[in-house]
Parts: sequence; structure tokens; C-alpha cells
Amino acid sequence: MADESQRGSINGQASNTDDAITSSNNDNAGQLPWFSPIAPGNVRDRTLENDVNEPAETTSLLGAREPSVNYSHFPSARTSSEDDIAVGLFSRPKPKRPTFGARRHTWNPSQLKALTEPIRRFKRRSGAYDEDKQALVSEGSGIRVWYDDYTTIDWIHDYVKERIRVRKLNSIKGIRGWIIQTYDGAQGWILVFLIGIVTACFAASVDIAAEWGYDLKEGYCTTSFRLNRNFCCAHKNINGEECEEWKSWSQAFQIDNNADMFNFFFYVFVASSTQQVVKPKRKQLKPYAAGSGIPEVKTILSGFVIRGFLGIRTLWVKALSLAMVVSAGMTLGKEGPFVHIACCIGNILSRLFHKYNKNEGKRRGIISAAAAAGVSVAFAAPIGGVLFSLEEVSYYFPSKTLSRSFFCAIVAAVSLKLINPFGTGKIVMFQVSYDKDWHTFEIVSFLILGILGGLFGALLCKLIILYTKYVRNRSWLKKWPVVEVMMVVIITASVNYWNRYTKMSSTDLVYDLFSECKGENDHKGLCVNSPEEMFDVFCLLGLALISKFLTCVITFGVRTPAGIFIPSLLIGACFGRMLGIAIQYLTMTHPDFPIFAAVCNQNKDNDCVIPGVYAMVGAAASLAGVTRMTVSLTVIMFELTGALTYVLPIMTAIIISKWVADGIVKHGIYELLIDLVGHPFLNSNEEYVEATTTLELCQRDLEVIDVKDPNTIGELKVKLKVLGKSMSGYSDAGFPIVDDSILVGYIASTELEHAINSLHSSDDTIRCCFKEPPFDSESVNFTVYTDQAPLTVSQNASLEVVLEMFKKLGLRYIIVVNCGQYVGVIHKKRLLGYLRQLEGKKDDDFIRE
Amino acid sequence: MADESQRGSINGQASNTDDAITSSNNDNAGQLPWFSPIAPGNVRDRTLENDVNEPAETTSLLGAREPSVNYSHFPSARTSSEDDIAVGLFSRPKPKRPTFGARRHTWNPSQLKALTEPIRRFKRRSGAYDEDKQALVSEGSGIRVWYDDYTTIDWIHDYVKERIRVRKLNSIKGIRGWIIQTYDGAQGWILVFLIGIVTACFAASVDIAAEWGYDLKEGYCTTSFRLNRNFCCAHKNINGEECEEWKSWSQAFQIDNNADMFNFFFYVFVASSTQQVVKPKRKQLKPYAAGSGIPEVKTILSGFVIRGFLGIRTLWVKALSLAMVVSAGMTLGKEGPFVHIACCIGNILSRLFHKYNKNEGKRRGIISAAAAAGVSVAFAAPIGGVLFSLEEVSYYFPSKTLSRSFFCAIVAAVSLKLINPFGTGKIVMFQVSYDKDWHTFEIVSFLILGILGGLFGALLCKLIILYTKYVRNRSWLKKWPVVEVMMVVIITASVNYWNRYTKMSSTDLVYDLFSECKGENDHKGLCVNSPEEMFDVFCLLGLALISKFLTCVITFGVRTPAGIFIPSLLIGACFGRMLGIAIQYLTMTHPDFPIFAAVCNQNKDNDCVIPGVYAMVGAAASLAGVTRMTVSLTVIMFELTGALTYVLPIMTAIIISKWVADGIVKHGIYELLIDLVGHPFLNSNEEYVEATTTLELCQRDLEVIDVKDPNTIGELKVKLKVLGKSMSGYSDAGFPIVDDSILVGYIASTELEHAINSLHSSDDTIRCCFKEPPFDSESVNFTVYTDQAPLTVSQNASLEVVLEMFKKLGLRYIIVVNCGQYVGVIHKKRLLGYLRQLEGKKDDDFIRE
Repeated sequence: MADESQRGSINGQASNTDDAITSSNNDNAGQLPWFSPIAPGNVRDRTLENDVNEPAETTSLLGAREPSVNYSHFPSARTSSEDDIAVGLFSRPKPKRPTFGARRHTWNPSQLKALTEPIRRFKRRSGAYDEDKQALVSEGSGIRVWYDDYTTIDWIHDYVKERIRVRKLNSIKGIRGWIIQTYDGAQGWILVFLIGIVTACFAASVDIAAEWGYDLKEGYCTTSFRLNRNFCCAHKNINGEECEEWKSWSQAFQIDNNADMFNFFFYVFVASSTQQVVKPKRKQLKPYAAGSGIPEVKTILSGFVIRGFLGIRTLWVKALSLAMVVSAGMTLGKEGPFVHIACCIGNILSRLFHKYNKNEGKRRGIISAAAAAGVSVAFAAPIGGVLFSLEEVSYYFPSKTLSRSFFCAIVAAVSLKLINPFGTGKIVMFQVSYDKDWHTFEIVSFLILGILGGLFGALLCKLIILYTKYVRNRSWLKKWPVVEVMMVVIITASVNYWNRYTKMSSTDLVYDLFSECKGENDHKGLCVNSPEEMFDVFCLLGLALISKFLTCVITFGVRTPAGIFIPSLLIGACFGRMLGIAIQYLTMTHPDFPIFAAVCNQNKDNDCVIPGVYAMVGAAASLAGVTRMTVSLTVIMFELTGALTYVLPIMTAIIISKWVADGIVKHGIYELLIDLVGHPFLNSNEEYVEATTTLELCQRDLEVIDVKDPNTIGELKVKLKVLGKSMSGYSDAGFPIVDDSILVGYIASTELEHAINSLHSSDDTIRCCFKEPPFDSESVNFTVYTDQAPLTVSQNASLEVVLEMFKKLGLRYIIVVNCGQYVGVIHKKRLLGYLRQLEGKKDDDFIRE
Repeated sequence: MADESQRGSINGQASNTDDAITSSNNDNAGQLPWFSPIAPGNVRDRTLENDVNEPAETTSLLGAREPSVNYSHFPSARTSSEDDIAVGLFSRPKPKRPTFGARRHTWNPSQLKALTEPIRRFKRRSGAYDEDKQALVSEGSGIRVWYDDYTTIDWIHDYVKERIRVRKLNSIKGIRGWIIQTYDGAQGWILVFLIGIVTACFAASVDIAAEWGYDLKEGYCTTSFRLNRNFCCAHKNINGEECEEWKSWSQAFQIDNNADMFNFFFYVFVASSTQQVVKPKRKQLKPYAAGSGIPEVKTILSGFVIRGFLGIRTLWVKALSLAMVVSAGMTLGKEGPFVHIACCIGNILSRLFHKYNKNEGKRRGIISAAAAAGVSVAFAAPIGGVLFSLEEVSYYFPSKTLSRSFFCAIVAAVSLKLINPFGTGKIVMFQVSYDKDWHTFEIVSFLILGILGGLFGALLCKLIILYTKYVRNRSWLKKWPVVEVMMVVIITASVNYWNRYTKMSSTDLVYDLFSECKGENDHKGLCVNSPEEMFDVFCLLGLALISKFLTCVITFGVRTPAGIFIPSLLIGACFGRMLGIAIQYLTMTHPDFPIFAAVCNQNKDNDCVIPGVYAMVGAAASLAGVTRMTVSLTVIMFELTGALTYVLPIMTAIIISKWVADGIVKHGIYELLIDLVGHPFLNSNEEYVEATTTLELCQRDLEVIDVKDPNTIGELKVKLKVLGKSMSGYSDAGFPIVDDSILVGYIASTELEHAINSLHSSDDTIRCCFKEPPFDSESVNFTVYTDQAPLTVSQNASLEVVLEMFKKLGLRYIIVVNCGQYVGVIHKKRLLGYLRQLEGKKDDDFIRE
């Protein structure tokens, strides 16, 4: 196996580190494709091949124009040999520009010519990012240029920068100082306040549009076309039959025969027409608006830059298309898209405040808060939103971000309540009113529900990934995403139409499944008393479960906004209610069974068990199996249902489901998607067990800048070009600065490029200085761009220490030294590549071969 | 001012670093007491002065036997000049052993003699802590001995050790390997399962005992003396009058005249007798059982070792005395003590499993989970418990700890529900049943409640600290803690007896204050309809508020277990209900006021506003002002009351209260207490803004071990002794190992001591080797005890980077280098000392002068 031989060579290296140090890069390249310094097909060689006169791209959507197969720019066995398989869920067209071969010393003549040419693209899009030069240099952290697209941010640098800014503000004395400091402190709160309000407005608009569009499939309002059924029949009973203002399409076209069939075709027709509108005008925008968006938001929050993903255009496209797909009745939820929309709003509004606009680290705190607002409006679950952001979405979540998220979630929820889009004034979505506590014997049922939830959840994850990987990405579907969407809509509509439960909107069905049978309302026939009726409902629900499950598999991952929450809840509610009905059936048919007799005797009627409770617990378990959330999910379930009495059953089922699902598939759906798409995400919860030393992992063949050398501009340009060729993730890379092999600093390639360009001189003989003192008066001083105190780690250090530092400090690179002597560099992306390789070997998982 | 001159000298150093490097330690010592390397009165010089034959102390309560004024061992201006003022809330007797003067070169002859004596105490209590020597050494992290009392733990080392252990387990193949690995993975879950059950049992016992004791003050049960009133009158109406089995003391002694007065004296008598029992048999145990325990638990979880604080004896004393003080009706809650009890249980049960027993880092994860169980049983709030542990108590809270806490909280809550100590089967403590939503105009009232909550909360914090600092610690109270407890009990009982609201138990009062006026129950006269009655109740509640507030100030901090939750809730509920009654009064007297007229007209009766809601919101706001919690507090309020409809008012009041309180006193009560007592706690939420460089902060005058030197045992012993004299926090200190001024490693003093002692040889000429290769065959190899890859930071690095590393990686020390050359060491305690000094200067707070 290829993997085996790779592994073997790593071990070989481990046992003979001296050899490894001396062996040239090229020797390793053949054996270790993962460690190869050359990225086949992924090198973003704009420095060399962009037209000299090409205007600097200023839109934030640059990334979308220069699509790459894989965000992470990691050369891998996979991408080199099976390029098309690696294309993920949100696949993009491959780059059209020519790429280089696999070995850097086989450059063809034109490439060699390019290498010796001067860099002429003097005006980079990315200007100097940091302003307070002197302070940053004195703190040992040089200034930086804007982060490039698809690069890793340097949290430590951003943190230092922020502290310098705050110190500067604090040095202003008197009233003026007080006002400035107070305003500065209030900015974060003002910002999240605005985010909350704007998010609520967007959510309300999407909700209203979606409701209207949803009902349009079945009929229209005669009094006012733009009203949905609820508002149209506001003062009537909710059931359509009794509302005269609302006409179904068969009534409207006065078709009496085959009304059902006509309604069906109209249903499918309207459902698919809404999809036509989603068809993207600008093809490159689409991938960003597709999917739930949570995997990408997670990746961005972990410290990665994806320009345009949280931009204005993405926001509009996502909001519009979300309204349409929800109208179409597809098996998808809106919580993921709402989180994405809220994060877009957070990102856009951050531009209002200099301190967030100019600090990628701080901006991520605001985006975390915005994510909380997203869930807050999607489910009217403010606390659940904060916890969702904390547990599932965010990477760093300090106490300040917690209070900001809290405030943002409140503002969003209060605003939505005041806007009152549904006209009901209700904040609890699936309000239940169980008036009985659970019996001790039911704990067994809840355990079963937990197990079922884990099974269904893990199966759903697995099937979604398998379908995406082997069916969608390997068939014609990949090239015709819009046709796929249409097909899915038609299939979904056709399947759903014939079952009274699937024909309802997902939220209505969940509401009915959760409900207790009380009074007159039979909740669409769910409240049954005779064994025969029970069997019918049981079968119908079983069919609904199967159809919803399968449509969810083919739906999640199409090029439309799609959340996984509501489908998961629905699946869980179906099997939960089925179990509930089954147990109710048992209590009715075997009332003398000791357990039932002991508990149920007191009740005269059949409500010894409440099937609605089972549906609720099942829904929680199913969602836990899909996402592996615990605390946030429990709180979301409260806030969705208000059923605090059942907190213990819900919690028990959730933890059991998590265990079962973890045993089958190691990660939740969001991690699986991140993995599938290949985002450079360093999972802070995962623990890697393979042993290696820091020495083996680090990249020792990088060009370095020796301060003793003349370091002319010409030489540096050549170095940059060589780096651009040899290094994957070029803009994340850089040069260690050494003084007789002693490490004295580090300069990133982007900063060096900027420094050279900002000289505005084509004289390649100018010498550059990277360390002061001594400072040669004839040379240009580039010290300001260098990191004079790069974080280092000893070559003896355990890999665990390095991992902890990357995870917890948010490093971009760490330099490996041996008693002060420079040894090599570990970049975050390199580390990630190594970890993925490990994981691929370890798991016999379907995701890696 | 002394502070000013100190500050000045730091600045002076900053401006002239060369001077600072060359200036001797003694010169600095005079100017900078905080940075003085000599700890007056705090040096734990057991190495030198312990009797040679003193048996090794094996109990985990050693720490309690060697009390020190201040946990942190930090020499400070405060402790040197005003030793007695610095004594904190949980003051201990001062050490009786002789301490050294302020300058190390003024040693007296006997001390000099001790310096040259060999170390004779060969058998240290602390043996080698780590087993897997070879693996640890190969990972660059040497082996360690047991952490000493009052030392900082090294998270990174513990983490590396755990990963090595897991790797070793994973290398076992086949069925046996699978079983071992599965069992290993399950241990954590089994452990938290046990913790949950045991915690629930303890909580149930304390609850039952406290209820019985509480009622005993007023009377006794004639059918069975050991029953409390509720159980005694189980089948009767709860009101005592109608229950014949229950006799008040005046009835029992057949005193008809002055029955009230007799009852009062008996009430005080019983209340104070319960306190007699708490009187400690072993004086040194008491301080650990006193107080809420949360500040200490926070400190321990942040990586500090306080032996015995979570031990078996502390557990028993705390549980017993908690039951008694709750019986006595003192103004204190039980959530803090319950958290402490749960953490004790967690710590004790950890000993069952090797991997938790031998790894302080991992054990802290279990204690975090136990803390969740504590709140879970105290308030029947499992989710609130997890969030409390996350937001308030824990320092590191990875995803694994989250699921463990979740499970632990479930198990504890389910167990308590099954044990059913109150016989009611209820899980919601202050169940409310509001059936109306809030009106928009009420948002103003909620804002007012938020502001009031912030004011009261901050004031309470401030008064508690001031009282402790200036009254308790400066008067005779300090020496007679038991008398103080008695006095407080008598004062509390005397004040509370005369007001029908304060005479009730705190939880009953909170319940009644939260209640809606519905049906027959007038909730102890709180449900009033006429303006006159309203005024009476308003005044009574005002008195209750004042008396509860003042008794809380004098109670919190006495030498008894005491939580702050219930008193805070009570205070908030009082002013909340008062505001509610006031607004109800307004709606009744001014029904035509436009706002009221618009909203209240529909209701015929007087329940336009629900005063109970105001009480609930006020309680949340007050608690937020005291503790500054946000999310966890909201969830706890849900779980306490079940009032999900009011989530937005509660959240709004909480965030407003937090803002107001933060504006008045910067920290919550727990941080203030930690600060007052002087625990070495590095607050990860705080951001420090003063600038200094790493170079200025580090300790450059430490003895180093040069591998080129002979390094005989004799020399090393002298070095250890000098370190013991010169270094504050001796056992946290160590020696950098250099090779021609290039840093090659680090050895901690405790490990070096252990290494020397384990030679079992008194030959002082043996040479020791600290670096291999080359390894001199004649010398002893101590490499195994050295940290061969100590974390380093450049002397140019910003202090912010160093702070981030300490906070996020949990370091014990970091070594400052300049291009590989050793410069100095920063110990966590030194960093803390510096930060405290900064804070003391910056705040004009009352806590620092």
C-alpha cells in the first residue's frame, strides 16, 4: 500500500535523524508525497504569471475568482493521484492556469526566465496592515500586511497589536482620555447590538418570504396574493378547508376531477420554479452560499481567511436562496444558513469599527457572537445560541466573547419578538404542555431512544458523506449542480405529496409529533385510541421516517443553503413517536403487565405514556447523533419546547446517543464535512496518539536569510520566487532569519514582498538589513517587517507540546531550534497535513482510504 | 508613596536594561520588595530545619500542619510591612519556625552552618511521580516527583505524560489490547458516574439533616423526634397550626404566657447549640471547611496544589457543619459548600483510578465535572451546573470535560430524584406557573431591576471584602472565630425572629416571593389587594431586605461553610417584589395612565403585572451583580423556576446588572476573595495593559548549572540551599542548565533534591551529569530528571505573548533566551506578583492601598 510505504519512510527517518537532516528535499519528495514541498496543481503562482498590468483586485471576492481545488493547498497523495475524487462537497472549477510539475529542479526554460525576472507587480492589493510600526517593532512583533486569501491568521500578532492599541488609548489622560476609552470599550457592545437587530430583520424577512412561498405550492390567498395561509385566514381556524379566502390551485382552476393529481403537479411545478430563481447569475458566488455554511464558519473562526465567504454578496444570495428552498419544501433546515447569514452580518458590520476591521483576531470574537444571534433567531433560542456558538462553532471563546454573544443573542431575540413575523407573538417554537412527570420504567425507553438516535445520526452522517463522495462527485451530478437541485426538488415533492405527514412543512410536523393528545385537536390524526388506528399511524410514520431520511441524504450537500437541524429533529421525532405509540399500544393491550399495572392503574384513560414526549426525546437523541452536541442541544430543546420537566430524559438520551454515534463514526457532521472539503482545520478536541518528534515534522529545507549575507533585493526576489515554487501555501510561508545559524528572527513571504515592492525601485543591488544593530547605513532597513521574537520550540520537544501551542495560542508557524541554532520551521498547514495523514492511516474510515 | 517609588524603579530599569542586567540582586531588593528574591516570613525551609528523623508525613493533610500566611509565598510590600493586614479571610496561625531576615547575605552563623551541612533528609515524602522514565525522557520532558504542597502544576508535562501512556496502551494489539483500551477509555465515565451518585447521597443527607435541624428551632415532632415538620405532618396541611403531631417548644413546655418570648429564646438557644458542635476538634482543619470553598476550588483548578483541601476529613467536616449552619438559619446558602463537597468526592474517588491519581492535570478535569454535580444537586439544576463549572469554576474546559460534566450532572440529578429526600419528587425548586407573557412597557422595570441588581451586588461584594479586611481581620474577632460564629448566629436569629418574612427559611421565602398570587394561598401575606396592605408588605419586605443584606455581610466569611447564592437571590427577590408591588400599586391607583390603560384594560382583576416575576428577575440581577455570571445564571434561573417565558427579561436584567456591577467593582465575589486571600490565581479573563518587556520581568540572578562544571553532589547541595534561602516559592523553582551560556535544559529544585536523595550516598564528591552525550562514565546521570526541551521565549518578546503562554498552556516557568543564550527565568508566581503590583497601582480600589 502506498500509505504503508509512506509510513515506513517516516519511521525510517525517525530512527536516523542525522540522515534525515542531511538528505535532500528531493529525495524525500518522492517517498512522502504529503511532505513534498511542491504542491501539484495548487501553487498559487500569481507572482510569476499574473499579467504585469493586471489591475489590483480590490473586491473581497477575489478568492472566488481564483478557485482552487482544496482550501488547504496541501499536496497530498490524494490530490496528486486522484484529483477529482478529492473534490469536496462544495467543489469548484479547477484552476485554468498552468501548473508546474512535481519536482522543482525540472523547471522548463520559461519558468527559469521568470525566476530571474524582477518582480514587477509593485502594487499589491494588500497594503501594510498595521499602523503602529514603532510599538509593534519594540514589542518584538513586526508589522504585517493584510492577510492573503486562504492563509492562516496569526492570533498572537493580532493580540499583541490590540494590546498596544489599548495601551496607547490608556495613555491619554483627562476627560478626553476617559471619553475615548469609554467609547472604545463600548464599541464591541454597540457592534453586537447592531448585529443582533440586523440579524433579526433578515431572519424575519426570510421567515415571511418562506412561509408565503411554502403555501403558494398548494394555493393562494384570494384577498391578497402576498399573504400566506396563516395571515390570510388569520381570524379563522388554521385548517385550510374552513377558510374561504384561501384557494387551492385545483379550486382556482376549477378542476374537480383529479384535483389531487392536479394539485400534485402544481405543487411540483411551483416547488421547482422557485429553484429556477436561485440559479446563480455569477457562477463563482454559488459555492459560498451553498450548504449550511457552518463548516466554513468553523474554519474561519479557527483562524483561516476565506475572502468573500462572509461578504455582502454571499449574504444576499444566501438569504434569497434560503427563502426559496424552504418554500420548495425540501428536507432541510434553516439554522445553518441563519448562522452563516448572521456571521456575514457580523463580518460586514465589523467594518464600521476600525479596531475590528483591522484586527482579524478580534473580528473573530464578533463573528462568534453573531453565530449566537443566528441560532437565537432561527429557533428563538438565545441561550441555546450562545452555547451552540461556544460548543460547536467557535474556536476560542474567552469570557468577553461569552458576554458579547449573550448580549447579541438577547438583542436578536427581543428584536425578532418585537418584529413578530408570524403574528403569533410566540417565542417558543414547538411549545408543549405536558402536565405529567415521567415514570421510572420509562427510563428504559429513553435509553432505547438514545441508542436509536445514535444509530440514525451516525448513519445519516455516513450516508451523506458517502453519497457526496461516491455519487455526487463521481457522476454527472457534479457538473450540473442546478439540474441536481431541480431533481432533488422534484423527487422530494413527489415522495412527500402522498403522505399526509411529509406533505406538511417540517416544522408543522415536528410540532404535531411533539404534541400531547389533549382536547379536540387530533394533530393530523396522530392522536389515536384504537389499536388498529395506531397501527396505521405507525406505518405512515415509518414511511415518513424512511422518505425523510433518504431525501435528507440526497438533499444535504446540494448547491443550496441547507441546515441539518430540522431534518434531524424530524427523523428523531418520527421514530420517537413510533416508539411512543408502540408502548402506548402495549399499555392498552397488556394493562395487567406488572410494570404497567403498578404505574398506569391510576389513570383511567390511555395517557399512561405520552407519545409526544418520546418524539421530543427521540428528536434530541437524533440531533445529538448527527452533531454530537450535548449542553447546547439540551438547552435548545428546552427553548424549543419549554418542557423543563423532561430535562433528565432528554439529557440521558443525548449522552447515550452521543456515545453510540461516536462509536460508529468518530466525528459529527460538521467535522466530517470540513474533512471532506479539506479545510485546514486543527480540531482542538481531537487527541492524536502517534509519536513523532518535532525534528521529524519540521521543514528543514527552507531557504533562510542570513544577516551576514549581502541580501540584495535581487537575491531576495529570487528567494521569494523559489519559495513560491517550492512551497505549498506560499503566502503562509516565510524565511527564518539567521546569524551564523543562530536564529534571530523570521519574515513572512508576504511581508518581504510588500517591503520590496514598497521601495518603488527597480535597483536590484540595494542591500537589505534584517537585524539591528548593527545597521549598515547603505542598506534598507527591513527590520520593521520581521518578527524579532518568533516562538521557538526545542527539537527535543514532544509533538504534543507543539500541538498544544498551535491549538491554544493560534500560531501560524513555530521555529524549531537546537540550543539556539536554527533547525527548521513547522507551519500550521504542514502540521495539519501530517495529522491528516496519521488519521487516514489510523482510521479504517470510509473518508480516507 | 512606596508604590510610586517602586514603580519608578521599574521604569528606571526599563529605560536602561543594561544597568538592570548588571545591577546586583541586592540593590534591587531594597527598592522593589515585590521583586525581592527573599521571602520574609514565607520561606518554607523544611529542607534545612526539619528534624532529620522526623517521620515522613504521608497524610494528605500535611499542608494544614504547616500553615503559611499566604498561599502564594510571594514576598510583597504588604506582607513584609503589614503582615497582619494581609491575613485573609481564611487566616491561619503564623508559622512558628524562625524565619530569616530580609537580605540573604546577612545570614547568622547557625544559618551559615546549616548551609554547609549535607542534606540528610534522604527520604522525601514525594517519591518519583512518573513511571515511564524512558518515554518521558525521549519526549524531552524529564520525570517529575510528586508536586509539593502549595506549588504550581505543570500542565504541559502532565499532558505529555498522558499521551505517552495512551500511546503505550494503543500499542497493545489484539483482543487484549482492545479490552484494555476500552476499559481505559471507560474509566473516566465510570469515575464521574460514581461521583454523581456519591454526591447525590451526600446532598440528600445534608438536606434531610438541615431540614430537621431547622425545624427543631421551633418545635419537634411528637410521633418521631427525628422527623422534620414536613414529614411529621406529611398528610396534613403544611401550616404548622393545623398539625397536631408537631409541637412548638412553648406548647411542649406548656408555657402559655409570653409564648413568643419563650419561643424566641429557645430558637436562639437551639440555633447556637448547633454551632457548638461545629467547633473544630482539630483546629487546622477548620479553615478548609470554612467559606464557600469556590475560590480555593478555582485556584486548585487553575493548577495549584493545596493538599488536604479536597481530602476526606475536609469532606466530613464540611458536610456536617453545613447541615448545622443551615439548620441555624444563618444567612447563607449551600451551593458553594455543595460544590466544595462534590469536588472533595471527585478528588477522593480519583484515587481509584491510576491514570487520574497519577496525573494532576487529568484529575482537574474530573474535579471540574464534580463541580457540575455539586450545583446539579444543590439546585436540581444539571445544565446550570455544567455551565457554572464552565463559566465560573474551571480554568481549562475542553470538550471532553464538557461531556463528562454533562454526564456527571445527569447522574447526580437522577440519583437525587430517585432518593427523593424531601418526599415531594419535585425537581424544580422554586416552581412558578406564570400564565401570562410580559408587556412591552415592563422592559423599563426590568432595566431598573438590572441596575438595582448591579448596585446591590457590587455593594455586597464591596462590604463583604471591607468587613473582612478592616473589621474581622483587625479586631479580636480574628482570634476568636468560634465566638464570632456564635455572635453572628445570635444576631441573625434575634433580627430574623421578629419579621415574618425573615423568620422563614431563606428558600421558603424565595419561593413565596417568586410566586404568583393565584387561588387561596396568600403566600404569607404577600398577596395583597388594597393599597394599605401593600404599603405594609412593602415596608416589611424593605426591613427584610436590609436585615438580610446586613447579616449576609457579617455572615459571609465567618468560619463556617457558607454560600452566597441563596442570600443574593433573596436580596434580589426582596427588592424585586418591592418594585413589583410598587408598580402594582401604580396600576391600581392610576388605571387611566396611558401606558397602563393601553395594556391593563383587558384584565378585570389586579394582575396586570405579576410581582412574582419582578422578584424572579430581581433575584437573577442581584446574583449577576455578585458573581458576574451570565449564561450559567440564566440557565440556573430556568431550572430553579421553570419560567421559560421570561427568559428575555431575565437575560436583559442580568446583562445590565453585570455592566453596572463591573463599573463599580471590577471583579465578582469569587475573584475578590481569591485576591484577598492571596491565592496564586492567574485570571485568564483579565487583560493587563501596562507595558513591560520580558527582559525586565525575568529573574536573571538565579543560580545556574553549567554542564562544563564538575557539578559534584556537594556543590549541588549548596546550590539547593542557596535557592531555598533566596527563592520565594522554593519548590516551584529550579536551575536552568547551560552549556557555555547556551540553554540546554532545566531541572526543578524538587527533582534535583529527589535525584540527590535517591543516590543514598553521602559522598559529596560524586559528579553529576545533566546533558548527554557526551556522558562521563564516572559521573551520575541526572538527565532523566531534567526538562530537555523547556519552553523558551525571546527576550524581545512582548509580555502579552508570555502571558498568553502562561494562561493557555498552563506553564510553571518559561525561560527567557536571547539568540539561544540563557537570560533568565519567569516563574508563574513571579509573573503573578508583578501583575498584582500593576493592578494595585492601577486601581484606586479599596482592596489595594
